[in-house]
Amino acid sequence: MYQRTFRLSCEELSNALYVVGTELQVNISRCAPPKCKYFSVKCSPTVQYKILPPPPPKEANTLPNLLTPKSILIITMDTASKHAFDSKLSVQYYTESTETLGRAILHLTAVEISLDVDADRDGVVEKNNPNKGSWKWGPQGHGAILLVNCDSEWTYRKRQDCDDPAITKVSDLRDMSRMVVRTKGPAQLPEGYKLTLHVSQTDSEKIRVFGDSNQKDVSNPLSRCFLKYFITTNPLVLDENSLCQVISYKGGTVESQFFVEGLRFPDKDFDGLVTINLSLLEPTSQFFPETPIFTDKVMFRMAPWIMTPNTLDPVEVFVCSIKDNYEFLKGMKNLVRKTGLKLKVCYEYMNRGDRWMQDELEFGYIDSPHHSFPVVLDSPRNGYLSDFPYEELLGPDFGYVTREALDQKVTSLDSFGNLEVSPPVIVNGRSYPLGRIIIGVAFPTTTHGRNMTKVVQDFLWAQKVQEPIALFSDWLAVGHVDEFMTFVPAPDRKGFRLLLASPDAGYKLFHDLQHDGHGQAQLFEGISGKKTISVDDILSDPQLKYANNYVQGCVDWNRDVLKKELGLEEEDIIDLPILFYLDEDNMALAYYPDMVNMIVLGKHLGVPKPFGPQVDGHCVLEAEMCSLMGKLGLTCFFIDDYASYHELLGEVHCGSNVRREPFSFKWWNMEP
Amino acid sequence: MYQRTFRLSCEELSNALYVVGTELQVNISRCAPPKCKYFSVKCSPTVQYKILPPPPPKEANTLPNLLTPKSILIITMDTASKHAFDSKLSVQYYTESTETLGRAILHLTAVEISLDVDADRDGVVEKNNPNKGSWKWGPQGHGAILLVNCDSEWTYRKRQDCDDPAITKVSDLRDMSRMVVRTKGPAQLPEGYKLTLHVSQTDSEKIRVFGDSNQKDVSNPLSRCFLKYFITTNPLVLDENSLCQVISYKGGTVESQFFVEGLRFPDKDFDGLVTINLSLLEPTSQFFPETPIFTDKVMFRMAPWIMTPNTLDPVEVFVCSIKDNYEFLKGMKNLVRKTGLKLKVCYEYMNRGDRWMQDELEFGYIDSPHHSFPVVLDSPRNGYLSDFPYEELLGPDFGYVTREALDQKVTSLDSFGNLEVSPPVIVNGRSYPLGRIIIGVAFPTTTHGRNMTKVVQDFLWAQKVQEPIALFSDWLAVGHVDEFMTFVPAPDRKGFRLLLASPDAGYKLFHDLQHDGHGQAQLFEGISGKKTISVDDILSDPQLKYANNYVQGCVDWNRDVLKKELGLEEEDIIDLPILFYLDEDNMALAYYPDMVNMIVLGKHLGVPKPFGPQVDGHCVLEAEMCSLMGKLGLTCFFIDDYASYHELLGEVHCGSNVRREPFSFKWWNMEP
Repeated sequence: MYQRTFRLSCEELSNALYVVGTELQVNISRCAPPKCKYFSVKCSPTVQYKILPPPPPKEANTLPNLLTPKSILIITMDTASKHAFDSKLSVQYYTESTETLGRAILHLTAVEISLDVDADRDGVVEKNNPNKGSWKWGPQGHGAILLVNCDSEWTYRKRQDCDDPAITKVSDLRDMSRMVVRTKGPAQLPEGYKLTLHVSQTDSEKIRVFGDSNQKDVSNPLSRCFLKYFITTNPLVLDENSLCQVISYKGGTVESQFFVEGLRFPDKDFDGLVTINLSLLEPTSQFFPETPIFTDKVMFRMAPWIMTPNTLDPVEVFVCSIKDNYEFLKGMKNLVRKTGLKLKVCYEYMNRGDRWMQDELEFGYIDSPHHSFPVVLDSPRNGYLSDFPYEELLGPDFGYVTREALDQKVTSLDSFGNLEVSPPVIVNGRSYPLGRIIIGVAFPTTTHGRNMTKVVQDFLWAQKVQEPIALFSDWLAVGHVDEFMTFVPAPDRKGFRLLLASPDAGYKLFHDLQHDGHGQAQLFEGISGKKTISVDDILSDPQLKYANNYVQGCVDWNRDVLKKELGLEEEDIIDLPILFYLDEDNMALAYYPDMVNMIVLGKHLGVPKPFGPQVDGHCVLEAEMCSLMGKLGLTCFFIDDYASYHELLGEVHCGSNVRREPFSFKWWNMEP
Repeated sequence: MYQRTFRLSCEELSNALYVVGTELQVNISRCAPPKCKYFSVKCSPTVQYKILPPPPPKEANTLPNLLTPKSILIITMDTASKHAFDSKLSVQYYTESTETLGRAILHLTAVEISLDVDADRDGVVEKNNPNKGSWKWGPQGHGAILLVNCDSEWTYRKRQDCDDPAITKVSDLRDMSRMVVRTKGPAQLPEGYKLTLHVSQTDSEKIRVFGDSNQKDVSNPLSRCFLKYFITTNPLVLDENSLCQVISYKGGTVESQFFVEGLRFPDKDFDGLVTINLSLLEPTSQFFPETPIFTDKVMFRMAPWIMTPNTLDPVEVFVCSIKDNYEFLKGMKNLVRKTGLKLKVCYEYMNRGDRWMQDELEFGYIDSPHHSFPVVLDSPRNGYLSDFPYEELLGPDFGYVTREALDQKVTSLDSFGNLEVSPPVIVNGRSYPLGRIIIGVAFPTTTHGRNMTKVVQDFLWAQKVQEPIALFSDWLAVGHVDEFMTFVPAPDRKGFRLLLASPDAGYKLFHDLQHDGHGQAQLFEGISGKKTISVDDILSDPQLKYANNYVQGCVDWNRDVLKKELGLEEEDIIDLPILFYLDEDNMALAYYPDMVNMIVLGKHLGVPKPFGPQVDGHCVLEAEMCSLMGKLGLTCFFIDDYASYHELLGEVHCGSNVRREPFSFKWWNMEP
């Protein structure tokens, strides 16, 4: 209950603008004439009052009340006034012998005022939600939601809408959150009273508010006609140059429409919460500040950027077309055709020979009860593909965000092959309904070693809804987590399996082959210019064995972290037979095409063709892969990326990217 | 349970360093020879194992177990080994016809390792608290506590201990939190294994860790003898230039002592939490990073800076001695003598004529289960008194902290007469057992107007345990909240009363006087060089009445905020009869000495002598004040500050400062 101390005077008439739902509190003795002993109160039928401490019950209501130093009069009204000062209340003061000493008269105007948002998250701006001023996670939670307006309504000569202080298209309003100022009252506010919207300096950097285009009652506030009118008047109300703005008041029942635009994602220095205030100002005189006599407030949370795991359905598949990747493109086209999707090809004028579609960007999305759209996170990597996310992806309802590594060195670990996300998991009773982000770094116990830049890590942690896990990937020459792990959908258990590259599984398979008399089966058959090597030769190479023992140790370290942080059991993990070798810096590289570095499109897997040993005309590695995945109802489709990707230290996953359906689960329903 | 994936080999002997309390998990089929069908396990009596999935019950324990692709062997040990590799386990592999195919042998060394802190907050470093790695508020909470080492062990040539990377006195260790590495095991770790302490880059900026002075078992780790030895070896282990450091391991049962020093208070960019890790590193070979095979971690929270309300007992009272304040000093000495304390006087060589002891600094303290000391917050004000907090107060067990206003203008609102704290309150069921900080700013709806600098506000909010309330004080010429409000102790209700300056109460008292025939009573009698004025003249001045109506409105606005934010009722508030006038900028100043601007020392109040109207030789304002305070058991002592403070726009409170006893309530027991 909003309580306001109010003063009466016997000397002059008092006027009060009263907001329905609040209380005026009058200390009666404060303004009583000297020697006053009793008082009585009269008022219009539109006014209610209460006296504290409550006077003793009286036989008839004719005797005045005893005045005490703490006698309080509480004044309320139920409905808005039709005319200014159409309600009255008077207090009469009496001496001990009940002679009248004086009278204080109060003229009252009641208005109804509320600042409203979609605090119950159903897409509709309800009236005066009691929880609108705070924010709470979870299905029983409350508080409105903002989107960062990071798309561009324009396809050509575009810039991000949040960089443009004007609204240039009606469609842009869909990216903003509606906010309504509801008022009801007489035709005009009493002289000098004002309604203002205001934000703090800190919050003003994160939002803009548009609105209040002098419209009267609007039957359909989201009609195209209204919206067109709205944006032609282009009414910027609040931003960082305008922290406080008077808005118009009109009599009767009015809903003034406002649109709130988000400008910044949550980050290390921004917890995502923004408060907007509506105050009613009372005039004093021109030399004094106007006094806020009533303040209503609403709280928004900026929607986080959310990543999409392999278990979500694909929507678009992206690859680069370059001089030498015809075979790969053909394979990818065939694979994507099976899913009913069309392959999106980035041509050479844009990729300038940079084929690593996975590394330049990560697809995600932002979501609110009123709207949702995909948002690409542009890596600080900045290879020749660096213009692609902004130039080709940013557009209407396709957002863009990036973090630049300021004074930090960008390493290979900043490529987004090193940024993945798990499917939803429950870990020791704690639920991660949107999964957990996975990145690769150096061991925390080494002080040299490569890392992902701090600005990107800070950004990822600040989104809160997919709490990141840091793995050890600095043992790999390229250093990306997608070189040793991926997730595939599964019909049972947790709905997915973790696939891990396993030199032990590779050696076991090769030992079995040798034992079965296939020691002379050759790897790398059919690759032009590449010498084949036999299973026997591989098994008798002590250096290779040593390297793979080391690699298995590194993968096992990550396996233990993933089991703990994702709550996995051994049965949730599948070991894929993959060997590695070490370069001159003792960093690991896949010995043959790294099958775990696959692209997952529903039940279709695009797997790097491993060129493993042939038995009876069939590749043993392909057969093993098909057998392991087949048990999960998944089909492997082997894509030859040897010359065009593998030899350049990447594979199918590194060379592709997938935009996926958003989660049906709403992020505000989780409790991080 | 810390689980580690471990691999066995039939080809070579495996060695494992095992940490008691963890599990080694071996996938048996991974290292099984081709065509293996069965396996069996044997081990030393010191080793326990379990097979998953559990083998079916057998009649005799002679038949081997069936090998499945997911057969897991879980190995544990109960106690530390006496000698390296004194325990063994072997797995034997068999064909379908139970012929032996091979054998994998594992030599085990068990050690006990824990990184320990006082996570249960009883002042003692307990062993391996299961909650030591996280932090939780409240009486059922857990997590260790750090103090910012912001005092100085030296009185001369001093600097803050946190600015000194070395420990120079044994007493400095008392300001740090103990951390113990407990180990038990054979005389040496197996070749190449290491124990390291490590922190993240971010956390390293907030702490230093000292310790590990090669001591063996220490019977009394806090003996002076040990501590002397400790600091002469001066063993800096971790800081921002050393994120990871190997610590020594010695056989048997050892407790290595470490001391953790806090360097920074919680602030906008630091939530107060710091994690320290202990890892056991396994060697691979010289070209590879060592692998952390076990990590233990502890979490600390930096103790917040806590303010002390008027309801806490005074410990020291500070004033300035200057040329013209002899009368005031005499009054203060008499007052302080009544409390049994001694007045601390800051002399002119240090104050350089700056008399505003309240404004330059705020006394507070920091607290932990092992130690507590006062900490002065130095205002960005920087008048001539600015050297006093550092030069005179900083010292052994007396800390210092300041925030400099970078590019922001420092205004009068940055003086700490504008920074107060309420007694403990409960507001709508939410408890503030340490009260709430109170500051004064401009209305949120005005865009000009003075404010408290952002760096100080950010600091205050970041302490979390006394959530601040922002009042409106920009209507006052000086702009300090202590000009219109204070708190005094009370024997009943919430244990205190809020006192508010009230022009209405003033006018009421003067009207009563006039009514009783004392309209010619004079104010300001006995002040040399000051013209007296009668009650009648005051009451007939319309400008003064107008000004006081405005002021009452400003105070009432704050009254409403305080009632709401502190959960106060009318009965918790006392209105003091004080009039104001407006200067040429329409800013308010006290018309006569502002009695609310008092110093509170237990039941003794040092009140500015108001020089009010005299009736029967007694000041009516003093009598009213004595009557109001007397009901609470408080004694008023009126101090003449007219010429020396009031005429310079301040009063008793502005010219004094009080260091108080800390709360008996421990901040970590609250839930902010």
